[in-house]
Amino acid sequence: MKRLLKGGAVASGNGVLRADVLIDGEKIAAVGLNLPEEGAQVEDVTEKLLLPGFVDAHTHFDLDVAGTTTADDFASGTRSALRGGTTTVVDFACPNRGDSLRSALDAWHKKAGGKAACDYGFHMTLVEWNEKVKKELLHMYVNGVTSFKMYMTYPALRMEDADLFRALEEIRDLRALVGVHCENGDVIDALIAQGREKSPNGMGPAFHPLSRPAALEAEAIGRLLRIAQVANCPVNIVHLSSEAGMDEVRAARNRGQRVLVETCPQYLFLDDSVYYEDDFNTAAGCVCAPPLREESDRAALIQALAKGEIQTVCTDHCAFTPEQKAAGREDFTKIPGGLPGVETRGVLLYSNLVDNRRLSIGQMVRVLSENPAKLYGMWPRKGVLAAGSDADIVIYDPEAESVITGADQLSKAGYTPYEGFRTVGAIEKVYLRGTPAVERGKVSDEAKGQFVFRGRPLFNEV
Amino acid sequence: MKRLLKGGAVASGNGVLRADVLIDGEKIAAVGLNLPEEGAQVEDVTEKLLLPGFVDAHTHFDLDVAGTTTADDFASGTRSALRGGTTTVVDFACPNRGDSLRSALDAWHKKAGGKAACDYGFHMTLVEWNEKVKKELLHMYVNGVTSFKMYMTYPALRMEDADLFRALEEIRDLRALVGVHCENGDVIDALIAQGREKSPNGMGPAFHPLSRPAALEAEAIGRLLRIAQVANCPVNIVHLSSEAGMDEVRAARNRGQRVLVETCPQYLFLDDSVYYEDDFNTAAGCVCAPPLREESDRAALIQALAKGEIQTVCTDHCAFTPEQKAAGREDFTKIPGGLPGVETRGVLLYSNLVDNRRLSIGQMVRVLSENPAKLYGMWPRKGVLAAGSDADIVIYDPEAESVITGADQLSKAGYTPYEGFRTVGAIEKVYLRGTPAVERGKVSDEAKGQFVFRGRPLFNEV
Amino acid sequence: MKRLLKGGAVASGNGVLRADVLIDGEKIAAVGLNLPEEGAQVEDVTEKLLLPGFVDAHTHFDLDVAGTTTADDFASGTRSALRGGTTTVVDFACPNRGDSLRSALDAWHKKAGGKAACDYGFHMTLVEWNEKVKKELLHMYVNGVTSFKMYMTYPALRMEDADLFRALEEIRDLRALVGVHCENGDVIDALIAQGREKSPNGMGPAFHPLSRPAALEAEAIGRLLRIAQVANCPVNIVHLSSEAGMDEVRAARNRGQRVLVETCPQYLFLDDSVYYEDDFNTAAGCVCAPPLREESDRAALIQALAKGEIQTVCTDHCAFTPEQKAAGREDFTKIPGGLPGVETRGVLLYSNLVDNRRLSIGQMVRVLSENPAKLYGMWPRKGVLAAGSDADIVIYDPEAESVITGADQLSKAGYTPYEGFRTVGAIEKVYLRGTPAVERGKVSDEAKGQFVFRGRPLFNEV
Amino acid sequence: MKRLLKGGAVASGNGVLRADVLIDGEKIAAVGLNLPEEGAQVEDVTEKLLLPGFVDAHTHFDLDVAGTTTADDFASGTRSALRGGTTTVVDFACPNRGDSLRSALDAWHKKAGGKAACDYGFHMTLVEWNEKVKKELLHMYVNGVTSFKMYMTYPALRMEDADLFRALEEIRDLRALVGVHCENGDVIDALIAQGREKSPNGMGPAFHPLSRPAALEAEAIGRLLRIAQVANCPVNIVHLSSEAGMDEVRAARNRGQRVLVETCPQYLFLDDSVYYEDDFNTAAGCVCAPPLREESDRAALIQALAKGEIQTVCTDHCAFTPEQKAAGREDFTKIPGGLPGVETRGVLLYSNLVDNRRLSIGQMVRVLSENPAKLYGMWPRKGVLAAGSDADIVIYDPEAESVITGADQLSKAGYTPYEGFRTVGAIEKVYLRGTPAVERGKVSDEAKGQFVFRGRPLFNEV
Repeated sequence: MKRLLKGGAVASGNGVLRADVLIDGEKIAAVGLNLPEEGAQVEDVTEKLLLPGFVDAHTHFDLDVAGTTTADDFASGTRSALRGGTTTVVDFACPNRGDSLRSALDAWHKKAGGKAACDYGFHMTLVEWNEKVKKELLHMYVNGVTSFKMYMTYPALRMEDADLFRALEEIRDLRALVGVHCENGDVIDALIAQGREKSPNGMGPAFHPLSRPAALEAEAIGRLLRIAQVANCPVNIVHLSSEAGMDEVRAARNRGQRVLVETCPQYLFLDDSVYYEDDFNTAAGCVCAPPLREESDRAALIQALAKGEIQTVCTDHCAFTPEQKAAGREDFTKIPGGLPGVETRGVLLYSNLVDNRRLSIGQMVRVLSENPAKLYGMWPRKGVLAAGSDADIVIYDPEAESVITGADQLSKAGYTPYEGFRTVGAIEKVYLRGTPAVERGKVSDEAKGQFVFRGRPLFNEV
Repeated sequence: MKRLLKGGAVASGNGVLRADVLIDGEKIAAVGLNLPEEGAQVEDVTEKLLLPGFVDAHTHFDLDVAGTTTADDFASGTRSALRGGTTTVVDFACPNRGDSLRSALDAWHKKAGGKAACDYGFHMTLVEWNEKVKKELLHMYVNGVTSFKMYMTYPALRMEDADLFRALEEIRDLRALVGVHCENGDVIDALIAQGREKSPNGMGPAFHPLSRPAALEAEAIGRLLRIAQVANCPVNIVHLSSEAGMDEVRAARNRGQRVLVETCPQYLFLDDSVYYEDDFNTAAGCVCAPPLREESDRAALIQALAKGEIQTVCTDHCAFTPEQKAAGREDFTKIPGGLPGVETRGVLLYSNLVDNRRLSIGQMVRVLSENPAKLYGMWPRKGVLAAGSDADIVIYDPEAESVITGADQLSKAGYTPYEGFRTVGAIEKVYLRGTPAVERGKVSDEAKGQFVFRGRPLFNEV
Repeated sequence: MKRLLKGGAVASGNGVLRADVLIDGEKIAAVGLNLPEEGAQVEDVTEKLLLPGFVDAHTHFDLDVAGTTTADDFASGTRSALRGGTTTVVDFACPNRGDSLRSALDAWHKKAGGKAACDYGFHMTLVEWNEKVKKELLHMYVNGVTSFKMYMTYPALRMEDADLFRALEEIRDLRALVGVHCENGDVIDALIAQGREKSPNGMGPAFHPLSRPAALEAEAIGRLLRIAQVANCPVNIVHLSSEAGMDEVRAARNRGQRVLVETCPQYLFLDDSVYYEDDFNTAAGCVCAPPLREESDRAALIQALAKGEIQTVCTDHCAFTPEQKAAGREDFTKIPGGLPGVETRGVLLYSNLVDNRRLSIGQMVRVLSENPAKLYGMWPRKGVLAAGSDADIVIYDPEAESVITGADQLSKAGYTPYEGFRTVGAIEKVYLRGTPAVERGKVSDEAKGQFVFRGRPLFNEV
Repeated sequence: MKRLLKGGAVASGNGVLRADVLIDGEKIAAVGLNLPEEGAQVEDVTEKLLLPGFVDAHTHFDLDVAGTTTADDFASGTRSALRGGTTTVVDFACPNRGDSLRSALDAWHKKAGGKAACDYGFHMTLVEWNEKVKKELLHMYVNGVTSFKMYMTYPALRMEDADLFRALEEIRDLRALVGVHCENGDVIDALIAQGREKSPNGMGPAFHPLSRPAALEAEAIGRLLRIAQVANCPVNIVHLSSEAGMDEVRAARNRGQRVLVETCPQYLFLDDSVYYEDDFNTAAGCVCAPPLREESDRAALIQALAKGEIQTVCTDHCAFTPEQKAAGREDFTKIPGGLPGVETRGVLLYSNLVDNRRLSIGQMVRVLSENPAKLYGMWPRKGVLAAGSDADIVIYDPEAESVITGADQLSKAGYTPYEGFRTVGAIEKVYLRGTPAVERGKVSDEAKGQFVFRGRPLFNEV
């Protein structure tokens, strides 16, 4: 079946062009002027912005963690994503120590398969390093898992420096991409223990930011980047949250290293004042790691984004209900960490950065679609509205207005940290590989996600 | 008439996509997969790279200077440009002091009209500042001249700081773009006078780089950028040649200013060792301002280019024959300054930066086509292969090989500073607004340039 | 005659040592423990701080400027200095254009000779550059005038870039020190003219800071330092007032240049809010160039001072009475520019930087005494309490307290910009070459200043 | 007994003054001009330089390590020190894990007591962190041990980040000084293991620098400084060896932290080319950690020293004989690490940095005497020639010349890495607390060292 989207403003990382878009089956067949209407179902998108479907390379669906399971599985999570214009997610498969990567990949295929409403891929998390893991890396790569994740914090997940180093050398040879969660777990644990000593009767959410200062994110970033320098391996700093961290990235780039940076909407639009609020739910709802930072960090990250120093904005969507969060009412370390966000990313960026001209539309497309598609080996299948690409299309109406509310979200979290934020524009429709997947806020049952077999990261093209 | 270029690799600032390109008359009608062949003349471009026609925003054709006239007028200059893949040039109209801008624009229209083989626009040079000039700026803008040029050196051209400042304030209000030639003329003249004193019997070309040290380019850049800071006006540093100069740009960007940078192939691929050669012609043939710099500057500029710190690579093509250059045999200050280059820019970048992976194809397209088109108000008419754009297309064969020789150039300079450089790939064909303008190295008589009426610079999109 | 100061805390750039100081005639004969009392008049200075007499290398006494003459001549000015602990001033001799340096030096010797109560030297101001001036430099040097001054602003004084450059080359060969007033006069004049256009009925003092933005000081500093880089000559930035200016100094130091920096108490303890006050006298009393800056500049300069990035704190004392200042009531450009300050420098630094531990006593001694003595060729005759040095001693009582008031000043200005500032400690006594010159706030008629014949600057020792 | 050293050039951190120095017993009684000769033994030191006895705050005497014991005990080590002008050493007491700090201190008192020929103090090394250690810190402080040491490498010594952090907090509250050996032991061990895998038949000294790249020193410095930022504690980077490491220090200082830096002569005057020499002894003789670095690091450290960015130059003297070094002939990891150096520090600095004017004499005195005395709580008893100070005096003859040879050293190492270095000037005589301790190269048996009970570090005065 052919569809002709007529008269829209077609956006890419380069800006906006007025053109018709012809969809043939799952693919975009042509982008052109006055394309012939014959044989096509014609849709008038005059005055609308056509954006390449967003790619969210940082989600956690159906994850067992902190003694519970995330509120969103692949069914609700991907429906929430689609409604927010995200047509592809890359989630994190994660083995337990001792298990093979293969088994973890199988497990995640099972979690997602048949459930996912949008397209999806997996990163593989490395939680230990040994000969077995080393040998499995290539197997992952040739099965479309071309990106890895490592942690410098959390006892169950963290890798020691020597293992980080060894893993980076292997990943470098594979030309894969590795994202690292950078926080100094050792000192954070010491700070938490100090807090417990000083406040034996309970530690509220206000202890959270105090126990994870920005300097400890910066420390871990600096350490990782020096180890990567020795290993001669590019790295991606995921969910970078602080100006101090950004400074470490700049220093490494100045000495010639390739460093990618991801940040998230929560670090751009929220700040740590929320942790000091009386209402436990409000504060707990924003407990995540790294924590929200100071207003000055927020401003610094927006500036870095505008200068092109940050390549991707993903969400780290990891949703828990207020009931789940309540487990840490007396002890913030028991609050399961994470925020919902996969549904609000695009509209937040447009409303708060594009509309006020801090970013151009081209810049927004780069960080939401084009760069993640390139870095995660999906370009040009994903991330661009061009002939041959998947027909993943967000039709955005810049004239609409709305207000974000938790009640309205498809995520099972049941709340949003952006409650009450006004939006400029709204997503009118989303196509997933040529199929209308969202219309007027409703996710269609026709929306069926597929696994995206990913290839080599395009480091040079972001 | 319709043409269908089938099976090529279509390049943009984002990288390369395989697609067909349909040309309808002067425009690109569609970029698509398996576009219908009916009614179109089909051309197989499999294995070829399709690049948006290059834009050279820095040429000097038919210019009276240093008591002579440049070797290339708009006829030979634009034919040379076309053969090098450049489908649009922006040349510099320049009044004498006392003359109106309007009269200068008229004069340049006469120089180019009917002669130019490729499309062309004009910048307007400001050589003085007064109420009359100030009032004429808007007239220029509404007549498609939306960029200006100022000089900080050369007695006949330079503007004092106060006038620079006043001009920047006006240009800011107009939202036009201003490019500035940054060198400290005052101290350069003192250095030349010192040279003359110490060497009364003649000063060869080796005096040229000594009299124009990089620190004096950096000084002028620093000064301009501080004045621009007070005036709150974006500026473009044209033909930036030195690492010291780049450092001043970085400092200004770090304090939040918008600064654009242009460099030229001669600063990327040649160095000042040529001035110390015995052969006068070789040395004199490279006399230009700023002069060629040290090897370390060359390396620093390539690195800056790779990091995206430089927005455009243009040529400052200003050609003189060896006979004209000979006027300065005894006194280098009498050598008319300038190099030919409009014919070699694209192939030099591909061969020396893309083929060895220092730049991606996307980066090359940005600095040669996309960014100049955006900055000089021609986007998306020029600079991109997209529906609705002018069908200015360079068909590049990456498998061809060649050697650059002066004898082979269309420029009337009669030599090339890149004599003997081996190339990787070659330009096979060039379309200008849908018409084959170059084929197998021959410029067609059908190639007829038009004046490009330019609009507002897109500062945010580069 | 011998005097033995017993039991004091003897300060130097290194900190404080408890020791006796033996004065023999005009010189310090020994610094020791339990020095023999015989033959000496013994003075108990237990609990007192003994500081090397302060050196103020930036005063303007008896200067004809702005159609008037400074309120302080060498008689009142040096008495004011002495009372503030300053035992040596270096004032600026300044010829008119066309006059010889020699005649200016003679004139200044006449102004000071027989009048000065403290020791004094002269810098020579260069207001033009030609063969005559060039030849006179050495004459100055061999007559004890080993430092020069140049201006980048003020029509009657400023040197163009080429002349700056030529002068720096000559001064470099002489190994003399040059201080430069850095502001871009050209653009400042344009800003003033703009102000006049927009406010034809008068421009109050609030126009003053607006017409001299920090960016224009930074511009001139940057320019000077690039010219000095080409000339390979160390330079001293006098009365540096802004963070932006300091950044330019850092950039030059990072590229390997030797740059000295002087700031003044007004830039450390006052800010530009005073210009926006209703009371004309208050605002006009602080009109000076460069103007007082923003609070953030103030903080940045104090930090730079603490880090050792600033070598000297002098005063730029240039006093006018409120009556004289009133000449500019309708037009701030007619306000004679300058502040009194020679009397309050030491106590301000102690009270506001040492007492609260932002600076150590050693650091204070360096910027007030030791460094100016070294840089201006008077070390170790001046600037240190050591055997063989002039017995110029400030006896400071850190337990006293006071309040600064205009009524109390010896300066003929008749006001102080530090009105009401509380002080920690007070100057109890000052010795000038062994003679008690100040006691309990009274300047003795015995205090007789001498011309200090200065030698080579010790660049390496600051 | 009184001695009068007449006519010498008395050096301090401020430069040089001509004065007589009167010694009374163990102390300097006065520094003065023409001090009375009566009752004193007069010594003519005209044309000689009088320097404050050097302080070496980094020696390892009588240390059991790597299955052997250092060649120098406190007898030979301190005699070697004295001969090199060092009148005070601060050595490292070091407990085994599980032992109390007290017992370690006792042990070191026993090693040194009665044997040491020069004065000595101890740092205490922390090799673990627990409540017991924490409680002992104050005990150390009140017993004159006001500085601590920690390691980030070596399995038997290293502290994990959390313990580093806890220790820094405690040391901060104590206002003591902590020096840290910064190298990432974890990754170094991985690199060594890799080397072993690739070269199973033996690893020569050339593997040494490869296994400890500068980036891993920089990493550890960066990490330490971020942890110190959270702990708000000043730290001293001992034996800093690389430009990359210095850059981390600069970054921390720029964000407002107090960081002290120590380097050693081996990093200023030797480079890693020695490890690639055929002769095992030559290479092994220079095996130490961090290793010698590249020529460019050397140059960068000298520049940093000249700019005042490095506070102290100590030696890390840790001597082994060639026979001891031979233990690692087949495996460089078995070479006991360390160099002799306590005897050559002063003359190396004078000959290679002062004589060629890269440092002033004042700067040399600061890094050799004044700053270590201040930082390690011995000022003004040590580090300065002033009334009341210990009469520790080096009489340096700048006109003498010599050549450094291993055969001539008092160290039991039996070699020197500076074999054949020519010296400018020589140490003619050394006084230790008023007693002639070295004369014409002979150490007197009268030289008896005492324990120096140290006080609070003077962070603000360096």
